[in-house]
Amino acid sequence: MNVNEEALRLHRAWSGKLDVVPKMDIGTREALALAYTPGVAAPCRAIADDVSAAYDYTMKANTVAVVTDGSAVLGLGNIGPEAALPVMEGKCALFKAFGGVNAVPICLDTQDTDEIVETVERIAPAFGGINLEDIAAPRCFEVERRLVERLDIPVFHDDQHGTAIVVLSGIINALRLTGKRKEACRVVVNGAGSAGIAIAKLLLSYGFEDVVLCDKCGIVGSRSQGLNEAQRAMLAVTNRADAEGTLADALAGADVFVGVSAPNLVSEDMVRSMNGDAIVFAMANPDPEVHPDVAKAAGARVVGTGRSDFPNQINNVVAFPGIFKGALEARAPRITEAMKLAAAEALAALVSDEELSEDFIMVEPFDPRAVECVAAAVRECSEA
Amino acid sequence: MNVNEEALRLHRAWSGKLDVVPKMDIGTREALALAYTPGVAAPCRAIADDVSAAYDYTMKANTVAVVTDGSAVLGLGNIGPEAALPVMEGKCALFKAFGGVNAVPICLDTQDTDEIVETVERIAPAFGGINLEDIAAPRCFEVERRLVERLDIPVFHDDQHGTAIVVLSGIINALRLTGKRKEACRVVVNGAGSAGIAIAKLLLSYGFEDVVLCDKCGIVGSRSQGLNEAQRAMLAVTNRADAEGTLADALAGADVFVGVSAPNLVSEDMVRSMNGDAIVFAMANPDPEVHPDVAKAAGARVVGTGRSDFPNQINNVVAFPGIFKGALEARAPRITEAMKLAAAEALAALVSDEELSEDFIMVEPFDPRAVECVAAAVRECSEA
Repeated sequence: MNVNEEALRLHRAWSGKLDVVPKMDIGTREALALAYTPGVAAPCRAIADDVSAAYDYTMKANTVAVVTDGSAVLGLGNIGPEAALPVMEGKCALFKAFGGVNAVPICLDTQDTDEIVETVERIAPAFGGINLEDIAAPRCFEVERRLVERLDIPVFHDDQHGTAIVVLSGIINALRLTGKRKEACRVVVNGAGSAGIAIAKLLLSYGFEDVVLCDKCGIVGSRSQGLNEAQRAMLAVTNRADAEGTLADALAGADVFVGVSAPNLVSEDMVRSMNGDAIVFAMANPDPEVHPDVAKAAGARVVGTGRSDFPNQINNVVAFPGIFKGALEARAPRITEAMKLAAAEALAALVSDEELSEDFIMVEPFDPRAVECVAAAVRECSEA
Repeated sequence: MNVNEEALRLHRAWSGKLDVVPKMDIGTREALALAYTPGVAAPCRAIADDVSAAYDYTMKANTVAVVTDGSAVLGLGNIGPEAALPVMEGKCALFKAFGGVNAVPICLDTQDTDEIVETVERIAPAFGGINLEDIAAPRCFEVERRLVERLDIPVFHDDQHGTAIVVLSGIINALRLTGKRKEACRVVVNGAGSAGIAIAKLLLSYGFEDVVLCDKCGIVGSRSQGLNEAQRAMLAVTNRADAEGTLADALAGADVFVGVSAPNLVSEDMVRSMNGDAIVFAMANPDPEVHPDVAKAAGARVVGTGRSDFPNQINNVVAFPGIFKGALEARAPRITEAMKLAAAEALAALVSDEELSEDFIMVEPFDPRAVECVAAAVRECSEA
């Protein structure tokens, strides 16, 4: 039985991957009188008097909504809200298993930016945070921007920022290994959607100075056609030479390649054209932009992918549970740029000098230290 | 320590009454590959091909949203969405503990009818049913009517229909005991809000013919001032003599009193003015419209209240978990009038002829047979 058949069989047997369970006994008269009427009136009154008491008396303290419009689900594309639900349930399961955070899937029957924003605003009272998931670019940028503005709870688009944090942590360790300086590196990010743009931005925040963004048409520059607002905004901070050309042109002389695009776009020759000790993160799924063996043969020193069957898996699960755990514990009203940088640095630092090698720049996805170190980094930023 | 202090202490210790937990191990590479990527793509594709497959592969099959706008919470009134959350969590805990149904609290940051309706429509894809809760009348009628029209999943306002089902089941047994015929009874329902109107409607559906609705101003009739649309609609089916007068006037010669109003509105004399073998359901909380001892002394034969410390507690918990369990199991698109009647009759029939007495007309709230018999009644109606 292959993985698809087995996954179908299991999903049918599970009939949903999540259970919502009471934390206490509620099946006796006495228990009911405390957890429900008449006792429940006391916390209700306390919250009516001071709305922040919701964090003391309710699940808001430790619960996030995982919100999607079903428009950009995994590699499957725009499959709609019901079909997105198995992914959202899985994400919620990861939140609990790795972060101890309760997460509820909210699959929206709209793909209109205004309607998404207003719907999330209206359901926000019971949640301590909003994790946006699998919403297509460029809509996702506007949705996130407006929700961050309007809500006083953290709003985080994991496809953007979770990915960016984990990529940055890997690059930090690749720099440790190769001795390259961030100020001197040229970075090429292929894929100018939500993940690519967020990665480019976080690398710039961290101190990289020469970042080039590419899309299907090649290098993104001032003469590129059909850019959306988010891509145009990147022109001010990336591709400072305003170069034109193909991805191959961009890669010649580059130090770092980050692919969040499609399979097999990078040839052996293209890797060979990069600078020495090249760093290649080829994260297209299931087939990377370049096979790790090919990249290595062409001279890349550090290669990462999204896959668990190669070394250096770049997996968001080391970041998002800790991001929300830390933010909820600190009751932070938002996830700041400083928190993202601190999280990436903390993840990188989990790999000791002794452990660090070409095949070990990233903590394993199931390393229990990841969530704690990320949560601590976020909490400390919040208190600072 | 009184119940309020103890409830506050416990709510603080629980920090939310619900946990959202994975049903399966997801903490190993192999498990993750089946419950999440890449395996999860298979159920996603199956649902994208046929949206009804969401019932086979996701939590939609067994999960309801418990939706409030915080406008009519318990006896506390319009306390807002955050302050309503402890009640919604408690309700969700009851759904799981009694019905095995997953329930998620959704507390809306709006009290506008159009916005409530459109928000619930937009979040509906991940849910198999919508339980409306503690939404003020008359808004709740319009919200429910429009959602029932627009959604293909059951929408049920428990404060209306759950209460009506349980009251009807109690009255059915009170008729068994007293030998009164429904066609010959005069019923007075005091309280013309969501519960009172729903009770009056269900009693009429069951076959009662003479029902009089009263509100704070007395008997609701064609000359009553300030009626809302729902109350005006009741004029066509209640108070057929178009009587005017006070609650006391209504009760003179009545057989059944149902109170969903306020404490101490019914005097000993008013009960005495009722017909012999009077049936009195005084459900105001925490203090009933008339104390059971007073009602009994004045000649009432059967007395029920909302309280657990008197006989014949009228408690919705015997109905709503089974209503949704049955509807979800049958994948019923709505809760029909026939289902409500069948549920009431099934609950009434749980009390055997041998058990039936003035002090035992209702199954106990914690009787495990309640959920199964109600669910079976709903399923059978759905298949009919």
